[in-house]
Amino acid sequence: MVNQNMLKLGTNRSCIRELFEYGLRQAAIVGKENVFDYSIGNPSIPAPPEVNESFVDIIRNTDSLAVHGYTPAPGMPAARDAVAAELTERFGLPIRGANIFFTCGAAPALIAVMRALNLGESEFIAIAPFFPEYRPFAESNGAKLVVVPADVPNFQINWTALEASINARTQAVIVNSPNNPSGVIYTRETLERLAALLKRKGEELGHPIFIIADEPYRELVYDGEEAPFIPTIYPNTIVCYSYSKSLSLPGERIGYICVPDCVDDSATVFAAIAGGARASGHVCAPALQQRVVARCAASRPNIRAYDENRAVLYEALTSYGYDCVKPNGAFYMFIKAPGGDAQAFSEKAKEKNLLIVPGGDFGVPEYFRICTCVSPEMIQRSLPVFKALLEEA
Amino acid sequence: MVNQNMLKLGTNRSCIRELFEYGLRQAAIVGKENVFDYSIGNPSIPAPPEVNESFVDIIRNTDSLAVHGYTPAPGMPAARDAVAAELTERFGLPIRGANIFFTCGAAPALIAVMRALNLGESEFIAIAPFFPEYRPFAESNGAKLVVVPADVPNFQINWTALEASINARTQAVIVNSPNNPSGVIYTRETLERLAALLKRKGEELGHPIFIIADEPYRELVYDGEEAPFIPTIYPNTIVCYSYSKSLSLPGERIGYICVPDCVDDSATVFAAIAGGARASGHVCAPALQQRVVARCAASRPNIRAYDENRAVLYEALTSYGYDCVKPNGAFYMFIKAPGGDAQAFSEKAKEKNLLIVPGGDFGVPEYFRICTCVSPEMIQRSLPVFKALLEEA
Repeated sequence: MVNQNMLKLGTNRSCIRELFEYGLRQAAIVGKENVFDYSIGNPSIPAPPEVNESFVDIIRNTDSLAVHGYTPAPGMPAARDAVAAELTERFGLPIRGANIFFTCGAAPALIAVMRALNLGESEFIAIAPFFPEYRPFAESNGAKLVVVPADVPNFQINWTALEASINARTQAVIVNSPNNPSGVIYTRETLERLAALLKRKGEELGHPIFIIADEPYRELVYDGEEAPFIPTIYPNTIVCYSYSKSLSLPGERIGYICVPDCVDDSATVFAAIAGGARASGHVCAPALQQRVVARCAASRPNIRAYDENRAVLYEALTSYGYDCVKPNGAFYMFIKAPGGDAQAFSEKAKEKNLLIVPGGDFGVPEYFRICTCVSPEMIQRSLPVFKALLEEA
Repeated sequence: MVNQNMLKLGTNRSCIRELFEYGLRQAAIVGKENVFDYSIGNPSIPAPPEVNESFVDIIRNTDSLAVHGYTPAPGMPAARDAVAAELTERFGLPIRGANIFFTCGAAPALIAVMRALNLGESEFIAIAPFFPEYRPFAESNGAKLVVVPADVPNFQINWTALEASINARTQAVIVNSPNNPSGVIYTRETLERLAALLKRKGEELGHPIFIIADEPYRELVYDGEEAPFIPTIYPNTIVCYSYSKSLSLPGERIGYICVPDCVDDSATVFAAIAGGARASGHVCAPALQQRVVARCAASRPNIRAYDENRAVLYEALTSYGYDCVKPNGAFYMFIKAPGGDAQAFSEKAKEKNLLIVPGGDFGVPEYFRICTCVSPEMIQRSLPVFKALLEEA
């Protein structure tokens, strides 16, 4: 009666959501202060004040029909131009408003790009550790997700495995830097080596291999590190962006796709992406949110709270003996499970009301993820639990 | 290099959008007052005041993290409950919050339902005249759209053709009442006869045939007519709703799917729809818009302006000799083209800067559509042009 793949997608909850909801139930039993929930990557710092001021001012001072009307499918010209100007100024690569396609966040952006590039069972490469939704995004839209094993313990790129995974069906490599779940930023050296490899393989195979740069964490960078804008290194890069983390607006579903002019046959790729979006029911991104972005495209979050949490957790956990690459972006840490089985370790942690996400779905079953977008008080209360778990392991 | 179907979808503009943009260009040449644009169904009455007040009040008086955070995929419990309570009270059929799945408008709602019900080249039946996007919604997601020819001139249902179109692959009939483009409401008698037919055919075929009720125009009803709530007549009805027209929020992308408990195995159908939405990149509907709906679920538009336009246009055009069923819903009129070729007639109209939409894409090439969501002044200026065109035909 119903499609069994869709039923599975709608029934199998993500492990993260299950943990998160377990935490809420458990808090009702043992008290909120006794649950240490590191499961879900929900921003814990509020939207910059000018974002909320813009919401109010736009509603108050713009004609209702104009505010809430349909925009063109790729977005309001003023919003597209504002994003383009900001990218151009910041990264020195000329981006025009016509290169920007607003979407309801990064998820439909990635799907529109995959649908545009899928020639029928085409392959998209994810580099472990990777965001688990890439798999349903590809597989439920007729494509295949190929996973390159992680480069442990630094979580850059396993070159031998990546090269071996590229073949005539490969259409793109998904690059998520700063990375969820590792918090690692791919270095300029890594990206240059990746660009050289994809250029060479594309020439061998006779078709371009795109990079799909999934960049919701672009603005969450610490220690003065650089997160290079990948189209400046590899021209055939399509950028998928979301304001979920950078403006702390995850529920508002606003993001964009950028197809720079340096992409091969960029107008054709852009048109196919517009078709991919239409095929998923895209009409326009929420108009009010587009107007807010038009005003706040250059706003930045105050990430000091994430940075402080990161410092406290990294120092404490490594001093206990946990093994973890120091994250310099996003709001995650990816930690080796004592004993090597993160599923078992996270079960033990759960018994102590410490909620951590085993890395199997991210493609690295020996590691677990914690989110650093939490309260400093919870961190302090949880540290003895982390310590005890390691001693018992 | 790109998927050719997606490229076509992204390149072939809708005839309506092309006309609309032609009108904007032409206005710059001959003056806005000399272009009579009846092409696009954009609401011309503003959102009810409480809607804009809610936007402001929610931003002003709710914690920023709470307002803009992710909601569960089907929506905020408070918003789901508000919609369910309003439907229950109004139509007497018990609807629970758990039956409601918020979406980014009706387009992704329809696609999620089609993906959930598509068993592989399943067939969805559209009854002409029908909303042209049904075709890409079905065809770009692996299903087939079967069109039942129109019941001319009253635009209820051609029963012989409908019955002949149902077979073992048929999963659902899409019902759009009040109808775009005809403005007709299916009568209770029509819907009861449809229910009896689908029940009998479902029993013969051994599987339910669903109704997908596409209802963005539910609140736009005139002359005290009734627009029955279809699940009260046919239990296997899945409702797709949008606030685009009813709250004049087309750009804000907020609507829902309702799977009432009376649907066969409704929890399974609901889960498959959740999967269908996830497969298209749905995370949640815009959270701020959900909160507004939670407060304004019972708000109604002031449709007097549409009603007056309808009266003026219907009376004038029929008095000139145009042939048109009197619309009692939505904001459209569907008019027989003098000479019987609406494409040719609309080209002639375009020469006089009168922009009307030929009915070919709606499945009725002898008719054209005009929108009544326009200014009364434009109507008055355009009437002599309608008259002259008929005299020349």
